[in-house]
Amino acid sequence: MKLFLTFVIFFSLIQISTIFAADFSYSGTTGPAFWGNFNETCLKGKNQSPIDIPYNEFIKFSKPDDVEFHDAHDVVIENKGHTIEISKNLDAKLKIKDNEYNLLQFHFHTPSEHRVNGKYYDVEAHFVFTDTKDNLSVIGVFYDVSDRRNRFFDPIIYNIPDENAKKTIDFIKLSSVIEDINWMNSTYNYFGSLTTPPCSEGVNWWVAYPVQPIGKNQYLKLRDAMGFNSRYTQVRNGE
Amino acid sequence: MKLFLTFVIFFSLIQISTIFAADFSYSGTTGPAFWGNFNETCLKGKNQSPIDIPYNEFIKFSKPDDVEFHDAHDVVIENKGHTIEISKNLDAKLKIKDNEYNLLQFHFHTPSEHRVNGKYYDVEAHFVFTDTKDNLSVIGVFYDVSDRRNRFFDPIIYNIPDENAKKTIDFIKLSSVIEDINWMNSTYNYFGSLTTPPCSEGVNWWVAYPVQPIGKNQYLKLRDAMGFNSRYTQVRNGE
Repeated sequence: MKLFLTFVIFFSLIQISTIFAADFSYSGTTGPAFWGNFNETCLKGKNQSPIDIPYNEFIKFSKPDDVEFHDAHDVVIENKGHTIEISKNLDAKLKIKDNEYNLLQFHFHTPSEHRVNGKYYDVEAHFVFTDTKDNLSVIGVFYDVSDRRNRFFDPIIYNIPDENAKKTIDFIKLSSVIEDINWMNSTYNYFGSLTTPPCSEGVNWWVAYPVQPIGKNQYLKLRDAMGFNSRYTQVRNGE
Repeated sequence: MKLFLTFVIFFSLIQISTIFAADFSYSGTTGPAFWGNFNETCLKGKNQSPIDIPYNEFIKFSKPDDVEFHDAHDVVIENKGHTIEISKNLDAKLKIKDNEYNLLQFHFHTPSEHRVNGKYYDVEAHFVFTDTKDNLSVIGVFYDVSDRRNRFFDPIIYNIPDENAKKTIDFIKLSSVIEDINWMNSTYNYFGSLTTPPCSEGVNWWVAYPVQPIGKNQYLKLRDAMGFNSRYTQVRNGE
């Protein structure tokens, strides 16, 4: 009997560790509808992201108090399977009410996660900033397929590593992002969440409206490297 | 008291009719996560569509027993808000085990609803066939943004009506669809469901793998007319 119980406990532990070892994904039983199994906030949170933003709620000339994007050298690009992420040696900051935030990493979603009046865009970039108290603020930028290549994407597209691998990129023209979005001449600012588990809330979002171009081949390469990685839109708080 | 009860019943009826009058959508409280409120099958069905199809489950040269697409005149195009649908005077049929199905309508989804190994495509067309016993069979075709215009889409793109309005299109080169997909040289055939409420099951799906081109401007026009209208993938039966 004791041996039997030991077996039962042993195999239960194996199963529990299997469940926890599984990573979230965008389909099947580890897809967005099941993210509550990774963290309850994904299921029960009241300020979850992304959302469908009514166009008339974008505010002209709204932006964080100060935004700086400097070009970056020797950054790291990582293929995390569910996204392509660039981190390390990034030099960009923003200020919100005397709090300074530094750029921790940026990554991409295809198609866009936020929507505007039910419409979506081909790519959404998330620039994730953090302050010294670990508060998060994210700038979201939309890109649409275009005849015109976007220089910012070139070093990214041509250096996408294999899944779960990393590479170093010599130079990224990060300053062109902020030129691109024309000093964020229209944004939607709200408190939401991470769009992946653990879905933590309290994230200060700045979704920029002017949609930027991305070349057709750049878009297809990025999309096919990541696949579908867009969480479905969440009900806005109060709706 | 009697008056009070009359009031209560009266206002309850108003509320019930409001709920039933609401149409499904792709965000907020009438979005895919809430379609169970329109029909229980959307929530509790066991063979729901779309699904994420493993690439190696596509079967080469698989197709319905007989497939014919003839060019069509004087068809009706309708902007239903959540999709663009073409119906009337369509002349296409397919045969499955002695059962003949006729083309009832076709419509589009952006981005694609079905996925292949987690990857998605820019557009998915659904050609909806029905037999005399109201059995449904749907051919799904993927399209990706391309430098090359797709002639099949031209009369559609240039005739998209306003929301909830209809138009007549003189001529649609329906035969080119079947040329395009090269006689469906690889398909995934399964029993699934409608991908919109009432999510009825027993739909015989033929998802064609060879991805077809759609011009960049054709794609953007179609996408922006419909917005995001892709149900999230469902867990495959048995998973």
